[in-house]
Amino acid sequence: MTVRAQQALQTAEAVLYDALVSPEVLELAPETSLKIETGKRGGQLSMSQVEINRLMLSLARRGLKVVRLKGGDPSVFGRSGEETAFLAGHGVAFEVIPGVTAASAAAAQFGFPLTHRQQAHRVILATARTQNGAVSLDSGAALADPQATLALYMGRDSLAEVSAVLIAAGRDGATPALAVERAGYDHARRVCSDLKGIAEAVHVAGFSGPVVVIVGSVAGFAQAAV
Amino acid sequence: MTVRAQQALQTAEAVLYDALVSPEVLELAPETSLKIETGKRGGQLSMSQVEINRLMLSLARRGLKVVRLKGGDPSVFGRSGEETAFLAGHGVAFEVIPGVTAASAAAAQFGFPLTHRQQAHRVILATARTQNGAVSLDSGAALADPQATLALYMGRDSLAEVSAVLIAAGRDGATPALAVERAGYDHARRVCSDLKGIAEAVHVAGFSGPVVVIVGSVAGFAQAAV
Repeated sequence: MTVRAQQALQTAEAVLYDALVSPEVLELAPETSLKIETGKRGGQLSMSQVEINRLMLSLARRGLKVVRLKGGDPSVFGRSGEETAFLAGHGVAFEVIPGVTAASAAAAQFGFPLTHRQQAHRVILATARTQNGAVSLDSGAALADPQATLALYMGRDSLAEVSAVLIAAGRDGATPALAVERAGYDHARRVCSDLKGIAEAVHVAGFSGPVVVIVGSVAGFAQAAV
Repeated sequence: MTVRAQQALQTAEAVLYDALVSPEVLELAPETSLKIETGKRGGQLSMSQVEINRLMLSLARRGLKVVRLKGGDPSVFGRSGEETAFLAGHGVAFEVIPGVTAASAAAAQFGFPLTHRQQAHRVILATARTQNGAVSLDSGAALADPQATLALYMGRDSLAEVSAVLIAAGRDGATPALAVERAGYDHARRVCSDLKGIAEAVHVAGFSGPVVVIVGSVAGFAQAAV
């Protein structure tokens, strides 16, 4: 985590935190601070975005210093746009503290780059699903760019479907692929395979936490050790 | 910067740092540590990658704890793949500490998200130039994905050319665009325009530091204030 995030937590009066935030991180906040879990893993027992927004606003209007705590970088699949638009619309002052996104964390932990001068000219950060459901073939074409490293967030459960779409869109099934469970956290795990085999490898490994999947030649650099 | 990066610096015996690392960051390293600048801005007075690799190796073999310090995230256009492959090939133990990449830093500083549920399903991190020269029309098609936010690193000098390639590849010239100079640093600046106007806007603003350019509807969220 960043030094600025640590400082914000140490002076927080209320912390609204997502599932998967480590207990050690929460302990940085003062004992006297109000600590509110906004969601359980899996999503069934979670506050809605509307409830989170209203609660942030209500606490801020009581004059409390509120920290909205998320893993990774809030601007990447973290709904920071919705939360900051809501706060700005209600005249609440805020600061966004950036974080290390899961693809960067996975790369550092398992010793591979996301770009490489000879092999990977760009990186695509995507989710396995969009708001309206599964990846379409149209998206498949955009994601199948052979010169890009593809980092798929929230990719665990629909990985077989997404791999098939990517291969149908022209990405080689033999492209190296890597899945990392709990990137950036202690006890992160990884499995290596190729695009056509990665869904099965993740299934066999029994990953149950959040998974980021890296597709591209850079995945071939991955090391066993953290 | 991250807490782990701070801790590594505080115990470093030698620091090899890139141009643009702030003096305050360097001061975290012990006064007794060897501080070696590997490059000046602009690139003319810089060590070559081979020289940097050899120096890292030589210092590490003398038993020193060496920190190779870069801005942003080393796995994204930071040559971490080349440097770690070199170290691994010579049997030198290393750890990669991830960082906040420039696109995330820019988003936090200027209040826009990189993804948005309705408007931006994915993010492409790219450079304005590839190893072999300018962006080709082939790359243009991959970068022109209308459902993606495009973050162009090192985009300042070839921005007019890249904008033209993107528009020729089908991206709407009226797409919001934003350029941020020195993302993540104090005194970061931004100019807002659209894809067809962003190169001129950057020119008029006289940006001289490193620039990340954001193309996509999310750029329309950007705030004036840091």
